[in-house]
Amino acid sequence: MSAQAIFNRLALIGAGLIGSSIARAARAQGAVRSIVVTARSAATRRRVAELGIADQVVETNAAAVEGADLVILCVPVGACGEVAAEISSHLAPGSIVSDVGSVKGAVIRDVLSQLPAGVHFVPAHPVAGTEHSGPDAGFAELFVNRWCILTPAADTDPGAVERLTGFWRLLGANVERMSAEHHDLVLGITSHLPHLIAYTIVGTADELKQVTRSEVLQFSAGGFRDFTRIAASDPIMWRDVFLANKDAVLEMLGRFNEDLATLTRAIRRGDGETLFQQFSRTRAIRRGIVEIGQDSPAPDFGRPHPELPHEVPQELPRPYSSA
Amino acid sequence: MSAQAIFNRLALIGAGLIGSSIARAARAQGAVRSIVVTARSAATRRRVAELGIADQVVETNAAAVEGADLVILCVPVGACGEVAAEISSHLAPGSIVSDVGSVKGAVIRDVLSQLPAGVHFVPAHPVAGTEHSGPDAGFAELFVNRWCILTPAADTDPGAVERLTGFWRLLGANVERMSAEHHDLVLGITSHLPHLIAYTIVGTADELKQVTRSEVLQFSAGGFRDFTRIAASDPIMWRDVFLANKDAVLEMLGRFNEDLATLTRAIRRGDGETLFQQFSRTRAIRRGIVEIGQDSPAPDFGRPHPELPHEVPQELPRPYSSA
Repeated sequence: MSAQAIFNRLALIGAGLIGSSIARAARAQGAVRSIVVTARSAATRRRVAELGIADQVVETNAAAVEGADLVILCVPVGACGEVAAEISSHLAPGSIVSDVGSVKGAVIRDVLSQLPAGVHFVPAHPVAGTEHSGPDAGFAELFVNRWCILTPAADTDPGAVERLTGFWRLLGANVERMSAEHHDLVLGITSHLPHLIAYTIVGTADELKQVTRSEVLQFSAGGFRDFTRIAASDPIMWRDVFLANKDAVLEMLGRFNEDLATLTRAIRRGDGETLFQQFSRTRAIRRGIVEIGQDSPAPDFGRPHPELPHEVPQELPRPYSSA
Repeated sequence: MSAQAIFNRLALIGAGLIGSSIARAARAQGAVRSIVVTARSAATRRRVAELGIADQVVETNAAAVEGADLVILCVPVGACGEVAAEISSHLAPGSIVSDVGSVKGAVIRDVLSQLPAGVHFVPAHPVAGTEHSGPDAGFAELFVNRWCILTPAADTDPGAVERLTGFWRLLGANVERMSAEHHDLVLGITSHLPHLIAYTIVGTADELKQVTRSEVLQFSAGGFRDFTRIAASDPIMWRDVFLANKDAVLEMLGRFNEDLATLTRAIRRGDGETLFQQFSRTRAIRRGIVEIGQDSPAPDFGRPHPELPHEVPQELPRPYSSA
């Protein structure tokens, strides 16, 4: 299709937000010559066919990988081992198998042992997403200016790593390499702990007796609504992340709890100086994220603000002039 | 200026994000005939004059309130009592004094005792804001479709409450009334606890030895960046909020800690069912907030996504066709 095609046949196993975004982006960029997609549920497969984002939709994982030179597992991390076992004997010699999992240590452990010799496993994690799930949620620009982290083992074929790097760059991503162990620590703090905290606080708000759910929704612009976006993320995906990255998450949770205890004590004691110091230094982090282009500089994430009302509201008290 | 002016002379004490937004909105809507602004720092007063958002800028709080029929304290909640003492003997009989504080019980306690008889104190809290501060950060649309909560005492003049209600409606806000005590609980969970948690986690990330600050910034799109926005809020304002609403915040923190302990235990034990249940029910809250128009339905808060790259990235591996 395009002179820049890096792979001949891309097999995507799973067509949720990430899988369907890869399909759209790979086609838009001519990164591959053809795309075959499969998904566990018949409804998802049907929807992918309707959306027309793949050249072929097949029923089984084994059928999907036949003749593919790049296979990407786009399933929850807890399902990767099982999928690897299913496709193992159908993989083409010299093909590259990759994934998109948010945890790398556990996925490598589960997948690597299943794959035959002569197949290159290059684990990957595109750090991108939205709170929406499923094939309709994907879009071709999802990975632009986001980071994709590769965690190949030391003995992985350098050519395979280079080809996958080129593929992700063509989809707009910046590519970084690190060890799986370090990845799981970094994402533990930048992604897994924030999700756990957001899920917790949204649950806490929903269980209060003193404050009704409708009050929580109504006054959520005070800050709470910022947490609800990531607490709306896919529950299966996130269950698997916490089960698979237990050690790093518990480590980060321990640190968080210590810091929260310090601030709690400051509030209890009326220690304004400690609060002020803490609240001042966190501003710099926000500034840094905006400066490197990882978030919008617009206030409020750039949320739209409706216009002022043109009509005088009903029930308006009498104007000053007649007072 | 306009037939719908509800007040003759509005005095704003403080011209940060909220004060300067009120000035802009009140003028845009013709809600008052003239606006006088003061601020503690000479730099802020000069900037307000340069911006041209007030009819008059004066040096002292006492001078600002002379002849005003609406006075709004737009200062951190810890400063309200002191300001009330300064303006007390200069307030016009029959005038309305209000505020914009995020805590109501403590402000009422600090302010009410300072005010003379014949002046109506109607505490208010517009639940709106951004992570930016100062007179340049304000904009006229800030309050549109947001809630403004009034917490007048039972014996407050109903006419005064009605006029202030009309003022906020004209600025685009929905107006709700509740007791100060209930307000402080509701905002404890929808605003104060989320801010405390966000300040904590951003601080935790910044202190880690295993993960560098540049890694935290780089991979913040995994969820962390959502927390950094509210952790960039004004440190003095938030120090005062936690000192003033100590009891409700500690109560909400206790609930949050219990819920976090439950999820931590589930992770430690590998209890995927508990995690899945919790992560599933929080989705409904997000849906509710979007449905009532308190957040954008667009994925990722509507953050912009750049286009796919048109140029082939550098260091691209050789294309498939020549492989």
